[in-house]
Amino acid sequence: MPETNRKFLLANRPDGKPDRDTFELVEEDVPEPGPGEALVRTLYLSVDPYMRGRMDAGESYAEAWGVGDPLQAGVVGEVVESNGAGFEAGDVVTGNLEWADYATAAGPDLQPVNPDLAPVSTSLGVLGMPGRTAYFGTRELADPGAGDTFVVTGAAGAVGSVAGQIAKLSGARVVGFAGSDEKVAFLEDELGFDAGINYKSTDDYRAALDEAAPNGVDAYFDNVGGPITDAVFSKLNVDAQIAVCGQISLYNAQQMPTGPRKLPKLIESRARVEGFLVQDFAPRFRQATKKLGRWVSNGEIQYRETVTEGLENAPDAFLGLFEGENIGKQLVKVGERGE
Amino acid sequence: MPETNRKFLLANRPDGKPDRDTFELVEEDVPEPGPGEALVRTLYLSVDPYMRGRMDAGESYAEAWGVGDPLQAGVVGEVVESNGAGFEAGDVVTGNLEWADYATAAGPDLQPVNPDLAPVSTSLGVLGMPGRTAYFGTRELADPGAGDTFVVTGAAGAVGSVAGQIAKLSGARVVGFAGSDEKVAFLEDELGFDAGINYKSTDDYRAALDEAAPNGVDAYFDNVGGPITDAVFSKLNVDAQIAVCGQISLYNAQQMPTGPRKLPKLIESRARVEGFLVQDFAPRFRQATKKLGRWVSNGEIQYRETVTEGLENAPDAFLGLFEGENIGKQLVKVGERGE
Repeated sequence: MPETNRKFLLANRPDGKPDRDTFELVEEDVPEPGPGEALVRTLYLSVDPYMRGRMDAGESYAEAWGVGDPLQAGVVGEVVESNGAGFEAGDVVTGNLEWADYATAAGPDLQPVNPDLAPVSTSLGVLGMPGRTAYFGTRELADPGAGDTFVVTGAAGAVGSVAGQIAKLSGARVVGFAGSDEKVAFLEDELGFDAGINYKSTDDYRAALDEAAPNGVDAYFDNVGGPITDAVFSKLNVDAQIAVCGQISLYNAQQMPTGPRKLPKLIESRARVEGFLVQDFAPRFRQATKKLGRWVSNGEIQYRETVTEGLENAPDAFLGLFEGENIGKQLVKVGERGE
Repeated sequence: MPETNRKFLLANRPDGKPDRDTFELVEEDVPEPGPGEALVRTLYLSVDPYMRGRMDAGESYAEAWGVGDPLQAGVVGEVVESNGAGFEAGDVVTGNLEWADYATAAGPDLQPVNPDLAPVSTSLGVLGMPGRTAYFGTRELADPGAGDTFVVTGAAGAVGSVAGQIAKLSGARVVGFAGSDEKVAFLEDELGFDAGINYKSTDDYRAALDEAAPNGVDAYFDNVGGPITDAVFSKLNVDAQIAVCGQISLYNAQQMPTGPRKLPKLIESRARVEGFLVQDFAPRFRQATKKLGRWVSNGEIQYRETVTEGLENAPDAFLGLFEGENIGKQLVKVGERGE
């Protein structure tokens, strides 16, 4: 086992868009697991848009990272050593660890992953936090049914791609916004969306929706916000339900973003708009993972992963999220099982 | 009985703010009730902010008035003649009639008013549409409970004044925005609000709320929109519930009003924002009216009316709504009972 551990720290708070200088890679000794802890070697780590919020000092739903502190991430890894943590060396586990080769964690903060059920990377994607986010946001908040039109933004991403497929399973017409022709083809040809809209090749989102959602919008799952969301709101039907999951288009704004006021439209449509965090549904995670696992294994839900190789490239993988570089779940591959 | 009937028509569609030229007063013969109809002599007519929407050609939740068509209003009046409408001369009724001295209506479109229970004018206010709007928006959507902080805009108006008192009955701390020191005194001294904020004498709504709602906002009943609503959103607590009833500050906008984007705050707070129309609760109107009647008769809900005398002054009464001239329900008195 190497004696050196690499890990990323928050070098400074970004003013607007983060860049490589936001991150500092340091080396240290591989940590020793304390009593009740395990040492975990990272196989994959997850980069997610919500992490942008943790880089700011202000209040947010996720605790702010301190400057100079290690960056945290969802990790799937292999137990190297368990010091009474309830695992054995070689066990595959997932947890909220660090952007690092190795990290220690208390036993209760790690969940076992069965590597025989699905590729272990899926515990960070379709069978992990993004899949569960899609599950609860779609079923509990947007709640599309047969005959409804469901719209999702960030549709080719880790959350959006699953949300659209869950809506499709409920019988809705599904329309997705994504950022390239390749992504639109992925939505329409591989995921079974009724229509994809490449928002980078059109300025007139409303006209695109008039064509893709001719009967208006009954349910909306928003990961992006901004002008696309403005266009979707203009098409809301009576009693529309909107799940606000993310607003990635606004996360790097240096000034308070402004846009058309939406509340008058809510009166006319009697629409309901609700923000949520997947953690709010924690007592039901097991239920969601079970359903998602069944849909994945019987082929009703397809997934894709974009894998960046090497811990040292994790910042690029993160920054790429804001440029829409990933299709499906963006992961960083750090190690191989059984190395 | 006079043979002449005065009525207001929509003279033209206002571009932005309506003015006296938006209205045309014409004279015609008093109409004859057809089979199944009654002729009703107006006692009071109601002017309401939502009527602004009916003056525009565009889609709205209320059907647009045609240029040259009679203006409609909630009216309480006295039956002059019933042609098989199921009423007798002298009965007091309410219905959606016209800005007129007299109007005819089919029997089923008129509801009886018992003049012995409460002043007949209350059937257009605290015991009518505005009271029911406050009832359902507060109880079903904003849903404040003991220990919550409830904020209402347009707090001295027909809807807001009742909404705040219903929230108070549920045990909430109640904060109201209103447009004069006289109104603030009305809220605090007569209605029992915990705090009133005169939005015309402060520019810093956020600072005013920091003082009046030190524990943040759990429930919000919005009649006004715009910058006050922006400030309230900045104070939303986790799981806050927002009832969007009206947006009077925006109704006369000539261009799409813009403001800070609110959806990111909804994620952080997991707040729910919902628009509504009182008509959505029509099957439960009787329940609401019964409850409101009890609260009014036992003094738990106070109400006030601002009465403009004379049909010819109805346009001024309507225009005054947008200047915040009324305290409580704005009515136009057109006739006396038994004249």
